[in-house]
Amino acid sequence: MKAEIITIGDELLIGQVVDTNSAWMADQLNLLGINIHQITSISDSREHILSTLNEATLRADIILITGGLGPTNDDITKQTLSEYFDSPLVFNEGAYKQIEQLFGQRGFPVTPLNRLQAMLPGSCTPLPNECGTAAGMWFEKDNTIYISMPGVPFEMKSIMTQEVLPRLASLNNEVIVHKTILTQGVGESFLAATIADWENRLPAHIKLAYLPQPGLVRLRLSASGSDFDKLHSQISQITLELANLIPEYIFGYDNDTLEEVIGKQLLSLKLTLATAESCTGGYTAHLITSISGSSEYFKGSIVAYSNEIKENLLGVKHDTIVKSGAVSEETVKEMAVGARIKLDTYCAIAISGIAGPSGGTDEKPVGTTWIAISSPAGLVAEKFLLGEHRGRNIRKAGIAALNMLRKELDKIQQ
Amino acid sequence: MKAEIITIGDELLIGQVVDTNSAWMADQLNLLGINIHQITSISDSREHILSTLNEATLRADIILITGGLGPTNDDITKQTLSEYFDSPLVFNEGAYKQIEQLFGQRGFPVTPLNRLQAMLPGSCTPLPNECGTAAGMWFEKDNTIYISMPGVPFEMKSIMTQEVLPRLASLNNEVIVHKTILTQGVGESFLAATIADWENRLPAHIKLAYLPQPGLVRLRLSASGSDFDKLHSQISQITLELANLIPEYIFGYDNDTLEEVIGKQLLSLKLTLATAESCTGGYTAHLITSISGSSEYFKGSIVAYSNEIKENLLGVKHDTIVKSGAVSEETVKEMAVGARIKLDTYCAIAISGIAGPSGGTDEKPVGTTWIAISSPAGLVAEKFLLGEHRGRNIRKAGIAALNMLRKELDKIQQ
Repeated sequence: MKAEIITIGDELLIGQVVDTNSAWMADQLNLLGINIHQITSISDSREHILSTLNEATLRADIILITGGLGPTNDDITKQTLSEYFDSPLVFNEGAYKQIEQLFGQRGFPVTPLNRLQAMLPGSCTPLPNECGTAAGMWFEKDNTIYISMPGVPFEMKSIMTQEVLPRLASLNNEVIVHKTILTQGVGESFLAATIADWENRLPAHIKLAYLPQPGLVRLRLSASGSDFDKLHSQISQITLELANLIPEYIFGYDNDTLEEVIGKQLLSLKLTLATAESCTGGYTAHLITSISGSSEYFKGSIVAYSNEIKENLLGVKHDTIVKSGAVSEETVKEMAVGARIKLDTYCAIAISGIAGPSGGTDEKPVGTTWIAISSPAGLVAEKFLLGEHRGRNIRKAGIAALNMLRKELDKIQQ
Repeated sequence: MKAEIITIGDELLIGQVVDTNSAWMADQLNLLGINIHQITSISDSREHILSTLNEATLRADIILITGGLGPTNDDITKQTLSEYFDSPLVFNEGAYKQIEQLFGQRGFPVTPLNRLQAMLPGSCTPLPNECGTAAGMWFEKDNTIYISMPGVPFEMKSIMTQEVLPRLASLNNEVIVHKTILTQGVGESFLAATIADWENRLPAHIKLAYLPQPGLVRLRLSASGSDFDKLHSQISQITLELANLIPEYIFGYDNDTLEEVIGKQLLSLKLTLATAESCTGGYTAHLITSISGSSEYFKGSIVAYSNEIKENLLGVKHDTIVKSGAVSEETVKEMAVGARIKLDTYCAIAISGIAGPSGGTDEKPVGTTWIAISSPAGLVAEKFLLGEHRGRNIRKAGIAALNMLRKELDKIQQ
């Protein structure tokens, strides 16, 4: 079954609101094995709504519509659907009771404008809205299903979860199984070349997508068919083959993040962590502490942006900075050891680099970054050549540092 | 002039990626007075790309296309555009040089796959991509402009800013003048009530938009007409009236950020700064160091996530933490003084709060945050009640801290 999404609202077309509804709905429908064929965002205009409905009807079996159901004059989706289906608005007792109940809870009287919201096209099945005054509407015409919902995300999600998804699940037979493999430390094209043979052997019903993000590449496998268990075991087998092919690059699966992964490692090993940051300026500590519960393993960081702080707080030798420079293997190693001692932790990450855009030289261009990990298991350091963009260099350096730590903790775990 | 956006990529239709590009592009085009009529998201499918181009051509003067330009097999936008414009791919020396340069900087060899990215339809004007290997492409046919760009947001933004927006600006005749007023420390509805009289007096050709973000509210004025100088002076006058109405909330204009504003203040006063962070976990230092040149005034930070670090590195008294708690006026003041002494700076910010979701109590619910500023001018502290969402609390606390510093530096400056 093919579905399309139509989102209606001027705010989407002037860039005031990012359309997060479509991705959520697409994800939910995908889990039911229903493919979204197109997402169309249009303004609150009668002609445009009618022409978009006509076009979508030619392509799709299911059309999900959000937006334009508010009580004010600029919202015209309901009136336009009434015209499209040639089905006049009639007073709906159930929808009105829902509005009364909602206003009762909030202690407000029902306004005449909100009373009008209980007028619905006679041919629709109303979909009760527990979170707002605009009911959803379900229409069927010539084997196509049309579902209209409010654009307010939590109202749409409530109607989808309570009403729409259960009805759609009962219609569909196809199943889709996804698996996302998360890699770090390898570029998209090098990765593609490395796994080309594996990719070429994928059966026709299993698709692969490359989804790059700053500092990492996600690989998504999607298998479609009728037998969930069979697809699931196929995807697992294929994922395992990939994991054996590029074990050094894979840090997790699906919704994992590196900060979560190292958090779980540290928790299970009962170890503590500190960071010493120069070019990343606290970003790595920020990533680590974005995880709730990180205070169990993360004690703190010394952001040593000036060389003076590197010497005074981290104990980097003045001579080391003079001889090798602040961005060097020697300095970053002393930073890592210093942080581990000073913050009294099991292990420490240190990062020193040239984030840019200025500060680069021929020998050490912008993006040059040294990362070290110190622990009782040893002291390792690695040089990275990132890019030219300051914000991305900071992000990439933080991600690369967490991945280095992950690999060191893996060794300890074994 | 009417524009449409076509975003291409399977990841958008299965809900793995939220389309943030469209809102950004729509906003940028709106600033030029170009209205977006429709946004269409489709899969990496030849037929679907061709039919969508055909439909958009009937409606729009300008068609912006993103996505599907990567080096891998699933990306087919370039080949499909080559077919659509009946313009075979030819090797483009300039595009290749750009790829070589990019890979050279990163120390990678150019792969054959990336060499293929320098093959472009002969009839297009290439739009150099400073941030990636896929060049943008500009086509013109029968009075319609087609612009194809990569889907990776920072690559798209780079090409838009460097190449597309300047070209589109030169096409359009209507003049739009914008002014964005940036406020911090006031909620959207309270702000709206406070400035209602001013807003009601705005002339019809000047529109006001409220653009809330976590921790701040932006107010954008847009004046449209034919006389640039007249619009400009009108907008300036109206902005001045607002500035006199709510001076305490305004920290800057247009693309200013708080981290830039305090950076400029510190530079002009020749003062240095440090931070001591608990709940923000390095995020405030990260904001400050996201500004190129911040090493001129920012010396570093002590992220004291554990109480032990607050005592050992920042010199917070053990008794203070026991008596008043880590999240208290007393502790945050001692943190600020400690950071200022330890990192030897003119002023220091300290932040301690409960980011959540756990750790809250009846007396100190999640979101409770104390911020202090220490400088030779004095020691001030303020309590903030933020929200329930961890990520947003961290962001709001960092922003609030920078705004407190801004106000303190303002006093010194006077």
